[in-house]
Amino acid sequence: MPKISNRGAEMPASPIRKLVPFAEATKREGVKVYHLNIGQPDIETPPAVMDAVRKADIKVLEYSHSAGNESYRKKLVDYYRGVGIEVTHHEIMITTGGSEAIQFGFLACLNPGDEVIIPEPFYANYNGFACAAGVRVVPITSHIQDGFALPPIADFEQKITANTKAIVICNPNNPTGYLYSRAELEALRQLCIKHDLYLFSDEAYREFCYGGEFVSALQLEGLEQHAIVMDTISKRYSACGARIGAIVTRNKELYQTVLKFAQARLSPPGLAQILGEAAVDLPSHYFDEPKAEYLRRRDLMVARLNAMDGVFCPNPGGAFYAIAQLPIDDSDRFCQWLLEEFRHEKQTVMLAPATGFYGTAGLGKKEVRLAYVLNLTDLSAAMDCLEEAIRQYPGRSA
Amino acid sequence: MPKISNRGAEMPASPIRKLVPFAEATKREGVKVYHLNIGQPDIETPPAVMDAVRKADIKVLEYSHSAGNESYRKKLVDYYRGVGIEVTHHEIMITTGGSEAIQFGFLACLNPGDEVIIPEPFYANYNGFACAAGVRVVPITSHIQDGFALPPIADFEQKITANTKAIVICNPNNPTGYLYSRAELEALRQLCIKHDLYLFSDEAYREFCYGGEFVSALQLEGLEQHAIVMDTISKRYSACGARIGAIVTRNKELYQTVLKFAQARLSPPGLAQILGEAAVDLPSHYFDEPKAEYLRRRDLMVARLNAMDGVFCPNPGGAFYAIAQLPIDDSDRFCQWLLEEFRHEKQTVMLAPATGFYGTAGLGKKEVRLAYVLNLTDLSAAMDCLEEAIRQYPGRSA
Repeated sequence: MPKISNRGAEMPASPIRKLVPFAEATKREGVKVYHLNIGQPDIETPPAVMDAVRKADIKVLEYSHSAGNESYRKKLVDYYRGVGIEVTHHEIMITTGGSEAIQFGFLACLNPGDEVIIPEPFYANYNGFACAAGVRVVPITSHIQDGFALPPIADFEQKITANTKAIVICNPNNPTGYLYSRAELEALRQLCIKHDLYLFSDEAYREFCYGGEFVSALQLEGLEQHAIVMDTISKRYSACGARIGAIVTRNKELYQTVLKFAQARLSPPGLAQILGEAAVDLPSHYFDEPKAEYLRRRDLMVARLNAMDGVFCPNPGGAFYAIAQLPIDDSDRFCQWLLEEFRHEKQTVMLAPATGFYGTAGLGKKEVRLAYVLNLTDLSAAMDCLEEAIRQYPGRSA
Repeated sequence: MPKISNRGAEMPASPIRKLVPFAEATKREGVKVYHLNIGQPDIETPPAVMDAVRKADIKVLEYSHSAGNESYRKKLVDYYRGVGIEVTHHEIMITTGGSEAIQFGFLACLNPGDEVIIPEPFYANYNGFACAAGVRVVPITSHIQDGFALPPIADFEQKITANTKAIVICNPNNPTGYLYSRAELEALRQLCIKHDLYLFSDEAYREFCYGGEFVSALQLEGLEQHAIVMDTISKRYSACGARIGAIVTRNKELYQTVLKFAQARLSPPGLAQILGEAAVDLPSHYFDEPKAEYLRRRDLMVARLNAMDGVFCPNPGGAFYAIAQLPIDDSDRFCQWLLEEFRHEKQTVMLAPATGFYGTAGLGKKEVRLAYVLNLTDLSAAMDCLEEAIRQYPGRSA
């Protein structure tokens, strides 16, 4: 029997999805499970964009251009201008979700053995894409006491070696919800220029900032050759299943290189590009309601969490995630216990153990990530469950 | 300015798409270009499957399961049974086109530095996926005089080293149209068992076999742990733009490994999975008409080609491609000349130089690949162009 590859063996299983079999068993018992474990919003996909797909007059569903339909890329120029980013349609490439944008960026910029520095906790799938590309992730710890602000630049300087080729940020951040300040991005800008590093900026949650100013990596001066934005419509329009994203860079050589990877896989999904293109035409006030709704949820959830005995949750500035510190021994054990053993009025809650978001072993054992993707009633019921669970949990710590 | 990666530099540009700028310039002149250069069928995507997408009642377009919707995978069990392949839905994973199936297969089975043996000429994008995975392609030449039959097993044996880990075939073949016989597959089966090699079988064109018997790699006894089928709905239902494929294997460890790569990219396209699932419900006689149409086209094209002075084209047993040998000095130069200089009644034809399908430098200089994806009238006009072009071409050889 032939062996699987080393990278196949080393490839991490999704830390978010590994509890799924327990959740399925719980549901089969007739127990209601509140899913705060995954960034799957319950917000309706805008009917107008679904209608655009329904009404599309397609005789032959052909390959599109490998970079994505030109009409869509041209419209995205307007979208990006609207959020303060000036790019041409030759600097935008449509990808199969934000996932493919990350994958293409890693493959085109990084050699096997190269290192990328990522503030932890970070989006766990960066590990998977790094593993597939043979790249080493070097984590730099951000701390819950600081609300997960950018770690000091000195910490980055300490980790930079001859193999360091890029810094990856997610802004606003998944899993912390932290929104990087202009000063923090300015510091990263200087660091990238000083050491000639790429700056990968995952801006999937750009639309969801609550008060603070959003600054894109593409707005940083002098970083034209270094900045690569990884984007997606998944969260922006609550269309996770469409699998449409984009990689945006002004670096022409890099764009042409990414295009070769794009050509190998022929084209991004065709039906979903129609959806994406229609979404650009949504009125600008479209985001008001989802954003206000997420804000209400954040306020409810963070207030409830901080009112619980022994719980601390910094107030996130963006996205729809928060990380909370709980009075527990082990977040993996706690999250599994919630599904396997805990019941509150025939209900329980599913959370993501924060351990899966740290690159440094042993961190995140007292932390969980919560995605506020449920309506206020369900979210409130989920908080009732969690509050009761913390009281009852056998592994409760002081 | 940071450097792009070595693999990015080495990544081959698509040999099929590199002539596109010349074709665009030609069209801007008002010249009609017959596209025989790319496997984009003109067959209508079945209206029933497009309707399934239009009628889908979707409030929130959510992530699907990383392996693809269970309902779709269960239906595919019936589809595969219908073509003589017995698998369960736990052995089928939905991918983003056949492209992702190849990519996942390479990543999960092969280490950087490993070698895969592929009979040449072969589908050019295997080079791209091998480059992305750090894998070395070792070509074994099949010959136009033999109709591109499988090269002798002795040729394979000669190329097998300690690094050889897999054999890749495309059956029926793109770009040659060759349909491998049961005896040839039996020989490969024995070879794979003897040397413990994976057998990747790209069966994108399974439905289009003209007379001969189609044998799947999954029908080969004793190869349960070695056989990996890479599949797609692109050609089967003329839905290239949907980007839905599948990787099918009975090797459980491999399936679980591929699932980790699938989890990292979250899910395959959602709208197109609806299309794919609806396609399984098409009546079994659905293929009769497209297959008959391709057969008429093949017969016309191959007859026309072989009637041209100095041209030889073996009769392909499947898919919708043929490779023809022409009396020319250099197929790259000839194909560019067709677009830049040759005009026949304000028309010309676009072909793919076969050089791009060979791994061995220098081969394919007198050969072109033709995809018979145009209706009989257009195909006939394209043959008129080609016949006249061969007469006029300044680089005509004896």
